[in-house]
Amino acid sequence: MLLSGLKKYPINIAAIVSMADDGGSTGVLRDELGVLPPGDVRQCLVALSESSGALRELMSYRFDGGGLKGHSFGNLLLSALEKINGDFAKGVEEAAKILNVKGDVIPVTEESTNLYMKLKNGKVLKGEEQINHNFEIERAGISRNYLYPKAKANPKAIKKIKEADLIIIGPGNHYCSIIPNFLVSGIPEAIRKSKAKVVFNCNLVNKKGHTEKFSLNNYVDSIGKYIGKDRIDFITFNSKKPSESLIKKYESKKELLIKFDPDESKKGRFKVIQADILSNIKPQYSKNDVLAAHRAFIRHDSTKLARILMMIMELGEHENIIKQII
Amino acid sequence: MLLSGLKKYPINIAAIVSMADDGGSTGVLRDELGVLPPGDVRQCLVALSESSGALRELMSYRFDGGGLKGHSFGNLLLSALEKINGDFAKGVEEAAKILNVKGDVIPVTEESTNLYMKLKNGKVLKGEEQINHNFEIERAGISRNYLYPKAKANPKAIKKIKEADLIIIGPGNHYCSIIPNFLVSGIPEAIRKSKAKVVFNCNLVNKKGHTEKFSLNNYVDSIGKYIGKDRIDFITFNSKKPSESLIKKYESKKELLIKFDPDESKKGRFKVIQADILSNIKPQYSKNDVLAAHRAFIRHDSTKLARILMMIMELGEHENIIKQII
Repeated sequence: MLLSGLKKYPINIAAIVSMADDGGSTGVLRDELGVLPPGDVRQCLVALSESSGALRELMSYRFDGGGLKGHSFGNLLLSALEKINGDFAKGVEEAAKILNVKGDVIPVTEESTNLYMKLKNGKVLKGEEQINHNFEIERAGISRNYLYPKAKANPKAIKKIKEADLIIIGPGNHYCSIIPNFLVSGIPEAIRKSKAKVVFNCNLVNKKGHTEKFSLNNYVDSIGKYIGKDRIDFITFNSKKPSESLIKKYESKKELLIKFDPDESKKGRFKVIQADILSNIKPQYSKNDVLAAHRAFIRHDSTKLARILMMIMELGEHENIIKQII
Repeated sequence: MLLSGLKKYPINIAAIVSMADDGGSTGVLRDELGVLPPGDVRQCLVALSESSGALRELMSYRFDGGGLKGHSFGNLLLSALEKINGDFAKGVEEAAKILNVKGDVIPVTEESTNLYMKLKNGKVLKGEEQINHNFEIERAGISRNYLYPKAKANPKAIKKIKEADLIIIGPGNHYCSIIPNFLVSGIPEAIRKSKAKVVFNCNLVNKKGHTEKFSLNNYVDSIGKYIGKDRIDFITFNSKKPSESLIKKYESKKELLIKFDPDESKKGRFKVIQADILSNIKPQYSKNDVLAAHRAFIRHDSTKLARILMMIMELGEHENIIKQII
């Protein structure tokens, strides 16, 4: 979502992508072909592609019959290119050429690994798919998030983080998409050392059984464990209320709007930018996208959010004016 | 093979492709997804593509594990595009754009059909795969080749045939690739009516159990049944002998070099152009092409054959000089 908004600006974008995905089509490809997980990379490539709509639609097309059922075409493309090139990152580069991608899509690690989560009750959840569908996580409490086996950062990701003017974290699935990046050895260190400003785009709704009771500060604390809470310079937080009917629909699934307590956030170094960054268009998914019904309707507006981020990047020394702007 | 040679010339190429394929990856896709057969179309698209070698290699890549085993990536591309566009021919057009294809690749029919063959012993072979792997055909004798259900020609194919300066038939699998085009209602009629010169590129070796005892004249008679023997203006026939060791290797598989009797061929209107059109390079197949071992080593040289065909097209009224040239 965010990348499709950012690509309209004259900036160099590097999307660093979590490699802990193991569900759905991606999971089957990992198991059967031994490839690295293509799903999240595919979505970033499509978002940054400047090719025709037809090619982008093709990338997201999912087969719905026979042995191919559930596979996204783009995942197959990435898996074939990994096999041909003998290297996932090289395959991603080739895909980026085919799709006329603006910027770089960089796997956070090139090592095959899995996301594990140890709960305080001693239970270990093995794999992103298992974690994502377990709704007892918050109740049990998390003892530790880790990758198994351990994985070292892709040097290209480290380089981009070091050279960046702006490091953007989120929005996204907290334990399954955002945190896994910080579990890769070398990534938190690189973020701490980088001179870039760091922005955290807070999600709009909490996830049932994962972050159900989270306020903004809980997210910040959770990320802060890895990169240091004071490393976050800005936070974007949506101020526009979705429609009551939409809120009720979400609440019935135990997905509540995230709360923000201004007094609490004064304890941090970061500045919270509250703005209308809510999408008010009903998303148009391809009729061939069988997952469309599962996707979010309370979602960010890519243009509005990108505009705020560009403003932050342009602020330079004037960042103290930000309290007036918001 | 031939298309990759022809595409270097400043001509408008339309490749009209048989739709009777039902073996391998193509057969599985037809069964499971209900799509039209992508295999032969894919090969023509790749041959006419002016994209990078990497993209062309990707199109021919075959998966070798799990539920995807044996599927060629290009077949999956065509099937996905057919599903998205709701129409095979439209999907082929989109694929042609993605692959930067020179010329047109046109399915001979847009109707789903199968190649059937009734033998003189009453047995009916159902489907190209069954026919291709039956080696008793020549011994039993063919009573009739037909499509079931009947299929009408794609109007675009008819239009191209009518407008053509040169109609090129073969080389290729006689009963499974060449004849099926003539079984489509409207195609033989269009060829007969067209003012184009007609060239038949005779194969190099006979196929075991199918055309094992065929001489050039048998091929001409077989094609002549559909378009009229006198409609053939030129025949190209290889005059260069392959190495003895290669010939022996083929003979051990009952694949014999095709014979040409000059006296016999005097009975036809056509002129036989005998020339060295044999490839003398060992073909370089992608290491990812799992079918490489099954492919022919006695094969046409695409450049040499294309040169002969261009000469025929340029001859104009001077075609009587051809006996001197050869």
